[in-house]
Amino acid sequence: MSQKGPMEIAFESISPAEFFYRNRQLAGFGNSSQAIYSTVRELVENSLDSCEDAQRLPSVKVEMSCEDSDIIRICVSDNGTGVAEEYVSRAFAKVLYGSKYHNRQRRGTFGLGVTMAVLYGQITTDSPVLIHTQCSGLQGKEYTLFIDVETNQPIVESSRPLKREFDGTSVTVQLRGDLKRAQERIVEYIRLSTISTPHAQILLEINGTESLKSGRWWDTVPPPVLGSNPHPRAADFEMLRRLAQTNGEKRLQDFLVSSFQKVGTKTSSRFLKFVSFDPAQKVSSLTRDDFGRLSTALRKFDGFENPDSKSLSPIGKEAFLAGIRSTFSISSQYYSSRGPSEWQGNPFIVEGVIAIGDDFPRSDIPAIYRFANRVPLLYDSSEDVLTKTVKKVNWKRYNVTSSAPAALLLHICSTRVPYKAAGKQSIDTIPEIEIAVLSLLKDLGRKLGKTVRKSEKALRENKKMREYARSFRHLAKFGAALAGVDEIPNTNRLVKQLFEVYPDE
Amino acid sequence: MSQKGPMEIAFESISPAEFFYRNRQLAGFGNSSQAIYSTVRELVENSLDSCEDAQRLPSVKVEMSCEDSDIIRICVSDNGTGVAEEYVSRAFAKVLYGSKYHNRQRRGTFGLGVTMAVLYGQITTDSPVLIHTQCSGLQGKEYTLFIDVETNQPIVESSRPLKREFDGTSVTVQLRGDLKRAQERIVEYIRLSTISTPHAQILLEINGTESLKSGRWWDTVPPPVLGSNPHPRAADFEMLRRLAQTNGEKRLQDFLVSSFQKVGTKTSSRFLKFVSFDPAQKVSSLTRDDFGRLSTALRKFDGFENPDSKSLSPIGKEAFLAGIRSTFSISSQYYSSRGPSEWQGNPFIVEGVIAIGDDFPRSDIPAIYRFANRVPLLYDSSEDVLTKTVKKVNWKRYNVTSSAPAALLLHICSTRVPYKAAGKQSIDTIPEIEIAVLSLLKDLGRKLGKTVRKSEKALRENKKMREYARSFRHLAKFGAALAGVDEIPNTNRLVKQLFEVYPDE
Repeated sequence: MSQKGPMEIAFESISPAEFFYRNRQLAGFGNSSQAIYSTVRELVENSLDSCEDAQRLPSVKVEMSCEDSDIIRICVSDNGTGVAEEYVSRAFAKVLYGSKYHNRQRRGTFGLGVTMAVLYGQITTDSPVLIHTQCSGLQGKEYTLFIDVETNQPIVESSRPLKREFDGTSVTVQLRGDLKRAQERIVEYIRLSTISTPHAQILLEINGTESLKSGRWWDTVPPPVLGSNPHPRAADFEMLRRLAQTNGEKRLQDFLVSSFQKVGTKTSSRFLKFVSFDPAQKVSSLTRDDFGRLSTALRKFDGFENPDSKSLSPIGKEAFLAGIRSTFSISSQYYSSRGPSEWQGNPFIVEGVIAIGDDFPRSDIPAIYRFANRVPLLYDSSEDVLTKTVKKVNWKRYNVTSSAPAALLLHICSTRVPYKAAGKQSIDTIPEIEIAVLSLLKDLGRKLGKTVRKSEKALRENKKMREYARSFRHLAKFGAALAGVDEIPNTNRLVKQLFEVYPDE
Repeated sequence: MSQKGPMEIAFESISPAEFFYRNRQLAGFGNSSQAIYSTVRELVENSLDSCEDAQRLPSVKVEMSCEDSDIIRICVSDNGTGVAEEYVSRAFAKVLYGSKYHNRQRRGTFGLGVTMAVLYGQITTDSPVLIHTQCSGLQGKEYTLFIDVETNQPIVESSRPLKREFDGTSVTVQLRGDLKRAQERIVEYIRLSTISTPHAQILLEINGTESLKSGRWWDTVPPPVLGSNPHPRAADFEMLRRLAQTNGEKRLQDFLVSSFQKVGTKTSSRFLKFVSFDPAQKVSSLTRDDFGRLSTALRKFDGFENPDSKSLSPIGKEAFLAGIRSTFSISSQYYSSRGPSEWQGNPFIVEGVIAIGDDFPRSDIPAIYRFANRVPLLYDSSEDVLTKTVKKVNWKRYNVTSSAPAALLLHICSTRVPYKAAGKQSIDTIPEIEIAVLSLLKDLGRKLGKTVRKSEKALRENKKMREYARSFRHLAKFGAALAGVDEIPNTNRLVKQLFEVYPDE
């Protein structure tokens, strides 16, 4: 912190840990409420990813307790794969260290979230992170770790063998903050998480008392999400260069077929003719200029199919509807989806449900619940492409009125979600995504419009029926009086029958 | 890109360059329009910072040209300090390498922006960055550089001595994108930049033709912004530990006085009494627990003064007003400021101008122009604390109506601006900042309210004057006719005199 005059400009390099320590609001750790929320969220996401890797129904437990006046202990446990000993210290205490990239849908982005939680705990309470993990067939182990912020290296404070009841991982961090203020958001986050991951069960315990048990609305683990080769339209210079480096001996055509998805012999032949390259040319003989032409052409050639969707895991119609039905009081709901489509070569699917029910606010625009790669997004709604697109739709056209409170639950899944910030709260406006979302919304709107019209009719009919019932009761009363009968006959059944016979009048 | 089944979870470490290559939208490089804008912006900001380091009036030239159908060449030149040879390759081709941190206001955040521009150019056009730089008294030199993305190391492709007309730096990158689509935003960015840095002149040349020359509305370089010790309320565990490491031999009291700003012998004595520590205790003898108590107490003790403002550089009343007057057609404007105040120990000042003029849209809420550390913010307005706070104010109370189109130009400067994302487009909602902005806005509102009332009165008076003038003309005409005079006397002067004598009627 020495003071230098102007003109003497010195430079320095900083570690990723130092960068995010100085700029922690970039990763969603700007203040203590945000930090508590982000910590729970990052740990739960890791747990859910890990359970799906293990192809097990996730059982996740979130324990929060107030140790001191403003020190909160957060422990998240799962029944996932566990973390192998060789990776533990770095996976939890080294920023930008994470599970290997396989070009497939994951909740976690790369190796930032959990280490940020560890870092925040360490700088606000000087506590290490406590990890208890056990992999299939191996002995459980417990660790306490710190991060050396300046070098971005893990410091193992202690480690010891410790059996765990079942395979999986528990992570405990302590951080400074106000539990009461953060609680509401955490409850909302967990409830919404079990809509987008309806096969998971999440338990929330606060100061030792069960506060929420949500989920397991669906009892099938979704099929494993497979990694895939990149789509040719995703090939920038850097990617091409790397692929070529390890495939120098291949013929150009074979290189294209083996490196990219959706490129077979036929497509590659047509492509190479389009760009005037010899299919038999060795990759190692290509010049920088050649790569330039190739890369440009890969993005311009319109003969490639859309990316495949095996690397994606949408929630799916039945599971999505089941989750919503179990969470909200609804009278009707409709599902629709669009895709697989692609943005810059990254496959994506958008799916959504429009629901009507008394849990939603009465407004002339539906309430919006956003999800990305099965993660609910609670903050920074107004700059998100989903919100922006919802606002572009004329909902009056679809009979959305405050008389029928509606909500939209929108999910985008992609091998790469274009988050606007590392805190993963809102999605950037990418034209291809905007188009797909707009088309989805219009379809949902049409489906809703029909119901609203139907339910308005039902309301009218109901009113009519009540009027008839009243008149009939009067008639029966007068009739009974005229006839000198004491007991007034019940006319309700009569009215009901009348409306059953002529339901459309 | 190999496909692994579930359960086999491998991990890997990635370099900061790789992280931002994969997640470039986090740094404002998500698509080509964004990338062009961010490139110009990062280069201009670096140039302005460098000129101020050199204490020179900045002359910055931005040249953009379309080399190919969709390849844009961007060159930004300045008359700043230049970059010393030992730093050049890393400063431009290593992510998270930047000018040393001195706890003072800067435009650039740490070592990300310019390298992102270099990275984006490299992956979209395979071109190196071209640097031409010359420091005071030294020979100029030209370099071409690439980034090795996987290792985050610079690759020097070429370097040669080359004299430069004057000291400073020129940076040229080539990237893929649409010049026409990006142009409007760039022009707006430059015009607004010369409001917040009114002593700078910025020239924009497009395809060799001067397209805009803006600035030098003020001819004084602001005094150098000095680094300062951290404020005690900013001391988290990490900071305390680092400070203690290099000050082990000091007595606790001396340690506090020399490490923090606004802590003299008196204040430190009171503080140490408050936290029950012996002022003479050696720093090296403090336990982890002691640091814990110290850190907590440093944030809770209410006897510290507000942070000092020598590390800040607000635009200032006269310079701010001069910049606005030179850029917009305005009829009146008022300045106000709040602070220095602090958030989490970081000093900040907010200042703003409310202006009325025909360049602004007619609305019942003023148009908003946001600035942070003298940088205009053009994107992601709706989630910004400045915008959010403006919307909280009831502008009707201050007579803001669509009849008098108004604009708010708001500047926050701080040693640390809590940007929401690395693309630096919007500011996080920090309670301390919100309070200061609200107070500023109310003051500006009151000042505006007075003018609006005055101008409404002026409008009424003007109308009255026109009516009088018409009546007098008629009277004069009739009088002349009655008198048989051909020439009708001019009554305008008479009416004017009448209103000069009784201006308040």
